[in-house]
Amino acid sequence: MSQVVVVGAGVIGLSCALTLSEGGYKVKVVAANFPTDPLSSKYTSSWAGAHYRPFPSLTDKDYEDAMLTRVTYDYFKKLSVEEPESTVKWVQGVDFVEEKGIYGVNSRGYYEGIDDMKIVPREQYPPGVAFGASYTTWVLNSPLYIQYLMRKLTFKYGVTFTRAELISLKQISQAYPGHIIVNATGMGLQWDGGYDGDCFPIRGQTLLVRVPQDCLYLNKTVTHQSKDGLWTFVIPRPHHGGVILGGTKQLDDYQSTPKEEDTNALIERAKILYPELFIEGQLDIRNVNVGFRSARNGGLKVELEKYPGNVSVVHAYGAGGMGYELSYGAAKKVEEIVKGIWPKSKL
Amino acid sequence: MSQVVVVGAGVIGLSCALTLSEGGYKVKVVAANFPTDPLSSKYTSSWAGAHYRPFPSLTDKDYEDAMLTRVTYDYFKKLSVEEPESTVKWVQGVDFVEEKGIYGVNSRGYYEGIDDMKIVPREQYPPGVAFGASYTTWVLNSPLYIQYLMRKLTFKYGVTFTRAELISLKQISQAYPGHIIVNATGMGLQWDGGYDGDCFPIRGQTLLVRVPQDCLYLNKTVTHQSKDGLWTFVIPRPHHGGVILGGTKQLDDYQSTPKEEDTNALIERAKILYPELFIEGQLDIRNVNVGFRSARNGGLKVELEKYPGNVSVVHAYGAGGMGYELSYGAAKKVEEIVKGIWPKSKL
Repeated sequence: MSQVVVVGAGVIGLSCALTLSEGGYKVKVVAANFPTDPLSSKYTSSWAGAHYRPFPSLTDKDYEDAMLTRVTYDYFKKLSVEEPESTVKWVQGVDFVEEKGIYGVNSRGYYEGIDDMKIVPREQYPPGVAFGASYTTWVLNSPLYIQYLMRKLTFKYGVTFTRAELISLKQISQAYPGHIIVNATGMGLQWDGGYDGDCFPIRGQTLLVRVPQDCLYLNKTVTHQSKDGLWTFVIPRPHHGGVILGGTKQLDDYQSTPKEEDTNALIERAKILYPELFIEGQLDIRNVNVGFRSARNGGLKVELEKYPGNVSVVHAYGAGGMGYELSYGAAKKVEEIVKGIWPKSKL
Repeated sequence: MSQVVVVGAGVIGLSCALTLSEGGYKVKVVAANFPTDPLSSKYTSSWAGAHYRPFPSLTDKDYEDAMLTRVTYDYFKKLSVEEPESTVKWVQGVDFVEEKGIYGVNSRGYYEGIDDMKIVPREQYPPGVAFGASYTTWVLNSPLYIQYLMRKLTFKYGVTFTRAELISLKQISQAYPGHIIVNATGMGLQWDGGYDGDCFPIRGQTLLVRVPQDCLYLNKTVTHQSKDGLWTFVIPRPHHGGVILGGTKQLDDYQSTPKEEDTNALIERAKILYPELFIEGQLDIRNVNVGFRSARNGGLKVELEKYPGNVSVVHAYGAGGMGYELSYGAAKKVEEIVKGIWPKSKL
């Protein structure tokens, strides 16, 4: 029996469960939190203002990850047509950058495989902007997307979901002997317990806002990267999900409740950059989101490791703020690795 | 200011909030439970295996309610095309009845306004069946539908949602002076507290099952009404929601947890009536649902009552097992009554 147990039910874990199910494997998911639970700071995938932004690659690893995001990009093209209930929708994406830096025509891995990618004419730049690019990109409603994945896994593929608070991967190998383990625990749960020392959380606070019914940001995502290192972005959430206004990237900050100063700073930036979000001079804030991106020095880790008893663990964690962008691509890579261990003959 | 407060956030309350918002009223919803809460026996709308079944009318009130269900039917036609994220989907509906009784060609309110309504040829009846009808009907994924309503109300219409455990309608009139109150509390919360004496819960237990990928009941809903008074039905839940196998109609039964004997009885009936649901001889049960239909002697109550201080309360409760079928129609009637009190000029 070719059985796989996926540990973790964030967007990476569920995507791995999906590619493996599609590949004919019998899959179980074990996790502490599920997409259908009430919102919790322990579970990151529900908070994401998920959209796709290409980035210039500085290293080979960057480039490799960029190509994984393209696998997701291509998959979402199919999904938005075949399964609109996934909430995936295509809109115009715009990036404005105040420090041009690595951005430009020769940037490696920036233009490849992205539809309608072009440099915005300089006369259309807002004040202070040194570089702008426009492209066709997907957005999705993150809490609905992961619930959709869970339903599809349940009812199409018969995947089972078991809740467990784990302290080590060893526990899993004991509870599921003979299974391949996919370690999609975000921060990298270790064999003997604890988390990957290269992993660290990056706090993000965003606002979920109601906008005027004719607001251009219901059909457009714009990211503004300031000289002082701040990122400000608007991302529509399809299926009447409002608009995400973000955000913060806070290292060594573990506060899971919203901070008023962050909210106020976001409102101030929005007044200048995105005045179209306001209704009668006010932002109609419907939720203040706080999530922790599970980042890793060196970026996403997707690789096979062997543990005592010849247990195969395929790691898939540390996606940081790129969980949705990497999700299907990383999961296809996980499936390839699993096939290398256990080629599955077609049923 | 033409302001309305809707009490209750089940499918009737949310539908009233929708028609009133569409009609230009400023709406607030106050409720103890919301569609996004974890499943609870206190909140019925999440459990429904919602589909549409026409019924012959015995009384004028039956006929009036039947016509309200047709309003919903027509509305859902539009919705399934314009907003597929509502999950509304059109499939073949079939009724098999062992005691013909009131069913037949002359039944009042049975055929009107239903697409493709026809009597099933006798040679296609399963054993014991005395009457069969086939028609085009909607199904929907009830937990997703009410969440969609809540999102649309929030982000399209700016409706606010406030959680409160109420003991009387008077409380609401004090908290929201000058508002029209819509009383969509299921069992009919009263002005001075308590519930409508004509209301009573009917326990329903159903099974949410995973079925083979080629199962005909992913695209068909069939209801089998036996001589002994039992109802057995299969209803697909669109958007990878599985299939509902039901059910029970238990009066004076307040057990909110699943009963093994009910589950076993359902499995036995399914073996005979719906063998196509089984996977390798087993039903793959993913949840056992228990909900309480808020029924009322005399059926749905939609009417205006005046209370001390000239407070207008529009009642909308007691839909029993027909909450989804009546929802939009009842809500349109509520909107008409509200317009009678407070005609709203277009903004």
